[in-house]
Amino acid sequence: MRSHLKHLLFVFFLFSSSCSQEKASNAIEEVHDPLPSWNEGATKSAIMAFVEDVTNAQSEHYVEVADRIATFDNDGNLWSEQPLYFQMIFALDRVKQLAPEHPEWKDEQPYKAVLEDDMKSLMESGEHGILKLVMATHAGMTTEEFEAIVKDWLAISRHPRFDRPYNDLIYQPMLELLDYLRENDFKTFIVSGGGVAFMRAWVEEAYGIPKDQVVGSSGKTEFVMENGQPIIRKLPELDFIDDKDGKPLGINKFIGRRPIFASGNSDGDLQMLQWTAAGEGPRFMLYVHHTDSVREWAYDRDSHIGRLDKGLDEAMDKGWTVIDMAKDWKVIYPFELK
Amino acid sequence: MRSHLKHLLFVFFLFSSSCSQEKASNAIEEVHDPLPSWNEGATKSAIMAFVEDVTNAQSEHYVEVADRIATFDNDGNLWSEQPLYFQMIFALDRVKQLAPEHPEWKDEQPYKAVLEDDMKSLMESGEHGILKLVMATHAGMTTEEFEAIVKDWLAISRHPRFDRPYNDLIYQPMLELLDYLRENDFKTFIVSGGGVAFMRAWVEEAYGIPKDQVVGSSGKTEFVMENGQPIIRKLPELDFIDDKDGKPLGINKFIGRRPIFASGNSDGDLQMLQWTAAGEGPRFMLYVHHTDSVREWAYDRDSHIGRLDKGLDEAMDKGWTVIDMAKDWKVIYPFELK
Repeated sequence: MRSHLKHLLFVFFLFSSSCSQEKASNAIEEVHDPLPSWNEGATKSAIMAFVEDVTNAQSEHYVEVADRIATFDNDGNLWSEQPLYFQMIFALDRVKQLAPEHPEWKDEQPYKAVLEDDMKSLMESGEHGILKLVMATHAGMTTEEFEAIVKDWLAISRHPRFDRPYNDLIYQPMLELLDYLRENDFKTFIVSGGGVAFMRAWVEEAYGIPKDQVVGSSGKTEFVMENGQPIIRKLPELDFIDDKDGKPLGINKFIGRRPIFASGNSDGDLQMLQWTAAGEGPRFMLYVHHTDSVREWAYDRDSHIGRLDKGLDEAMDKGWTVIDMAKDWKVIYPFELK
Repeated sequence: MRSHLKHLLFVFFLFSSSCSQEKASNAIEEVHDPLPSWNEGATKSAIMAFVEDVTNAQSEHYVEVADRIATFDNDGNLWSEQPLYFQMIFALDRVKQLAPEHPEWKDEQPYKAVLEDDMKSLMESGEHGILKLVMATHAGMTTEEFEAIVKDWLAISRHPRFDRPYNDLIYQPMLELLDYLRENDFKTFIVSGGGVAFMRAWVEEAYGIPKDQVVGSSGKTEFVMENGQPIIRKLPELDFIDDKDGKPLGINKFIGRRPIFASGNSDGDLQMLQWTAAGEGPRFMLYVHHTDSVREWAYDRDSHIGRLDKGLDEAMDKGWTVIDMAKDWKVIYPFELK
């Protein structure tokens, strides 16, 4: 009887232990691929090792939740930016849409160039010309009106290469990375040279990043009473350029805390990564390198859009992690999953 | 036997039902006074009715979590501001501390006035003089150095009336209100005329509001390399004044979403409350009226600090909720609870 009992217990033990092992390994599989669109390799391993380390209360690198700040550039880092920053395409489309109300634009640069699809003259109009376009299309309305204009544009416009809405061209692997960081109590922010009002119109839905966690370039605004109702009107005057030095300054101004994780894809992100790297304790600096001419685009040191030159040198020099899109990402866009 | 069983079941039913009723009523008591330092009355009822309404999925006034934005002024609204804004006291203390390094201050206004405790001359130096003091004490160092200076000051300074650290003079009823809103998935922000860097040094601990949810006035900054290390240095130049019109503009810039709940105590908060009130759907506008000369201070229309005049008229006209400190608050400060 006793030996029978022992035997039963032994069988039960075997069964229960194999059962719990099976459960555990299922759990490991389910829990342990937070980045399913990332190929196995040094990049994915480095990201996961960092997150596991700073969230492990037993580790000497443990970081308190309040300090788990992660900042992401947007253009070329969370969504594509070719053949032209999508916000620039929005501005060009908007000029064409508004042209009937501005007959004078037919003869005035840079509007004339836009209306005639004359990219050469447009480029020749330089920074001053671009700024004029931005002001003509991003100011003069209330903040709510502008948000509606951006949403309408996203709903009806199609990317020339993919024939899809521009906000379909967000990076599936980066969506997974954002989720993974948030599951580990990171607070995720966008820190982009793009316009903050343009981004706030759609990033919440696209990336799960709330509007107040978006830092970007901005124009001045005014608060006025109109027919007894207060409105905020966008003015045709620059307020803040969130690029290069502007990125760490924007982080300091809007977030007030140095990130421990920062991700960018161009030289415009270098100062943000330097600022992140210079803090105490564990840090993670991540560059997206556009190496996939087939599924996305391949460009770096000589590109007019998203040039990555000094940043690439510094990343290699300092041992920062560089994503090789072609090699590290199983898919680029969410629609490839379907 | 069957009757015995019935009897037992009946007794059991009675017991279990009275037991669960007891539990339920305990639960109601525990859950249902989220504002224990508020006296029962119209103010407390109005706040709770609003929160219950907008968080009730069956209500026509239900508000999605992402839109549950609540903004709070700081000085005189979350902590006291008499006899002088505490940040101003910090600046005066700091001038005295730095005086040995600035022998020229003995003969130069407004420093001379500060060093001689000559409030009359100091006031006569006007806005320009005050700005000079702020710049002399809030610029020239890195952001980290400034944070350490503020923390040191809070640790050693005592409020002249209460002989306690300044950050002891936060309002217990407002702490409960902040907690109550957050329990109901509101995101709570500070929107204050005070300096953002000054506030970020201590508000997280005091109010449970993260640094990135603090909007305030700010000076310009620069990003520079010093001995190969990037630093952000505070410059003696104003960047943004988060007061009056600046409040809705600051909300739009930093938060990007209109609050549905806003709380202030002075005319400097009026535009924030107007902006909040003018949105669609349910809204809650709250003024703190300083009516308690015994436990705190009593001041409104004629005060140099925290003047509440036009705001009080508009609150009465529009039916906004006005806290009568003397009547509505059981205690003012957390230390009264001990």
